[in-house]
Amino acid sequence: VTDLTTLERIPRTLAYAAGSLVLLDQRRLPGERTEVRCTTAAETAAAIRDMAVRGAPAIGVAAAYGVVLEARAAAARASAGAADVVAAATAAAAILARARPTAVNLAAALERMRAAAAHAAGAGANAGEVARRLEDEARALEAFEVEASRTMGRLAAAMLPERARVVVHCNAGALATVERGTALAAVYELYEHDRLAAVYVDETRPRLQGSRLTAYELTRAGVPFTLIVDSLAATLMRRGEVDAVLVGADRIARNGDVANKVGTYALAVACAHHGVPLLVVAPTTTIDLDAADGDAIPIEERDPQELTVAGGERVAPEGVHARNPAFDVTPAHLVHALVTERGVVSPVDAAGIARVAGTR
Amino acid sequence: VTDLTTLERIPRTLAYAAGSLVLLDQRRLPGERTEVRCTTAAETAAAIRDMAVRGAPAIGVAAAYGVVLEARAAAARASAGAADVVAAATAAAAILARARPTAVNLAAALERMRAAAAHAAGAGANAGEVARRLEDEARALEAFEVEASRTMGRLAAAMLPERARVVVHCNAGALATVERGTALAAVYELYEHDRLAAVYVDETRPRLQGSRLTAYELTRAGVPFTLIVDSLAATLMRRGEVDAVLVGADRIARNGDVANKVGTYALAVACAHHGVPLLVVAPTTTIDLDAADGDAIPIEERDPQELTVAGGERVAPEGVHARNPAFDVTPAHLVHALVTERGVVSPVDAAGIARVAGTR
Repeated sequence: VTDLTTLERIPRTLAYAAGSLVLLDQRRLPGERTEVRCTTAAETAAAIRDMAVRGAPAIGVAAAYGVVLEARAAAARASAGAADVVAAATAAAAILARARPTAVNLAAALERMRAAAAHAAGAGANAGEVARRLEDEARALEAFEVEASRTMGRLAAAMLPERARVVVHCNAGALATVERGTALAAVYELYEHDRLAAVYVDETRPRLQGSRLTAYELTRAGVPFTLIVDSLAATLMRRGEVDAVLVGADRIARNGDVANKVGTYALAVACAHHGVPLLVVAPTTTIDLDAADGDAIPIEERDPQELTVAGGERVAPEGVHARNPAFDVTPAHLVHALVTERGVVSPVDAAGIARVAGTR
Repeated sequence: VTDLTTLERIPRTLAYAAGSLVLLDQRRLPGERTEVRCTTAAETAAAIRDMAVRGAPAIGVAAAYGVVLEARAAAARASAGAADVVAAATAAAAILARARPTAVNLAAALERMRAAAAHAAGAGANAGEVARRLEDEARALEAFEVEASRTMGRLAAAMLPERARVVVHCNAGALATVERGTALAAVYELYEHDRLAAVYVDETRPRLQGSRLTAYELTRAGVPFTLIVDSLAATLMRRGEVDAVLVGADRIARNGDVANKVGTYALAVACAHHGVPLLVVAPTTTIDLDAADGDAIPIEERDPQELTVAGGERVAPEGVHARNPAFDVTPAHLVHALVTERGVVSPVDAAGIARVAGTR
């Protein structure tokens, strides 16, 4: 039943080839479809920090390629040894790790790259071999995220009614991953099997990832949707028009608490009030076993201008005080199920999290 | 303790004098402080429809003066009789009634004006006397709303802790009334008595009445506040940082259901989940005894462009489908108290509503 023409029209977030990482510049969407080309770790870190690329799985893969860029450059220098490539990769990882604090995929991808470099060098690889090993590792992470998207889409869709009406928050789609997405992978799956009765895309203040990115993605893919303000979702639930809310995650603590785009918690509370299931769809790379609970997850505070300026126009008086956390924390008990590429965790608790993450 | 200098810096929404109604153009705030001058009912209706003036109490008073403008013009015509003035007032009311559907204050003010005209003509007044009677009636409504604001502010503040941290939604301030406001009147009252520990102003998508208008008002008045996205309020409640949520109302049904700015219901659900009281602060002119419950209240659906264009910039792809109701309905049982100029109703139910509205 899979409709490949639809699939091909879903945008791809990034592409790596021979010493350069090309990113679809998400800040310009939907108005302009332009690319950012990164040839250094610093450029890649800037693209992550400034949100040319965003979404936990996507920034993990982008960061991995950021390490590859420096490893490759180091290996190309005359007289470079394996240790020089490892040092370059380690320095690159340090730059990239600081780009954004909340998504754990970034730190996890960098740790994976550091370990791969050290292992290759320890096994006697030369400079070029270490660099190639890192490129293989980044490609493996990319392939993992693509495959994980497919699996999560199928598993989440299987939990929904035959004809499903869902709310999605932020962009947990192709533009947040490499392709298809996490929560939005389920929407694509439903659509391809003629099971999607309605998808409500909330605009996702303050950066409008819903109206800018999810709307762009679904429009390209030909999937009909309805745009709403974030605060309308509760009313749609009250009217019985929502079967489930689907979100991604930026970091999941050991006890199942979920850090995700600000507004997720308000949706979780509305779900609890109306008996609507909240499904968190996220790969196991999003789980941070070092974080005991949501309180241990660092929450990025962003520029208040995201609230006070809209489309270049000042909407609030100069100098107003604002609080602008990019993420919030939803306690595990409000999450009906966590859908990972390794299976569904429900109820969401420490035992369930350990089951899918434990042997990673 | 009252700080009159602060008071004087709170903007005034409208002023009527000798055949013209001057409105502060709220669409241009906070960038420009300009006025709209109305000399006909049609101009007044356009100002209400296009939201140069908004807020249930304010549009009621503006509409009353819209009737005065036509009555005065009719009375000035040579050979005009009382019946001509009544006819002009009735025609004006018909135009004004269609300007916006949800706020009942508009319909109630127009009914009051129609009744005053008919009563004066029936009592033998001449054309000029009928017109003057209507001007008196509009001024009385304006004075009522000003006095009601003061009373509601005092009553609502009395229900809050000695040092209170509150969330306000939309603009239920001076700019929604004639001065001071409904929910925001309580904030001014707290501030003047050094009882305001924190006020969180949510931006109020899609039209940003919080960041554009409430932030403007509070900045002018010198009241410190913190701007947040609508969806952050639930997280602030989870952290124990909110003592109450204060909102206004556009129409209150006989059973206590409240129609107010979209997003109110989501806040009400978050309040219920966290045990935070939701106070609806609204004059009894907002009560519609003809509406049995929230389902009987017409909800205005506005242009989807309010979601798809920000500051002149298109943020969602062309042609997307959107649902954009301006208001939502909060069931009475989620409202901790209704604060009116005639006293506090709590619990909010048909008996309580009848008590404050019954003898109106």
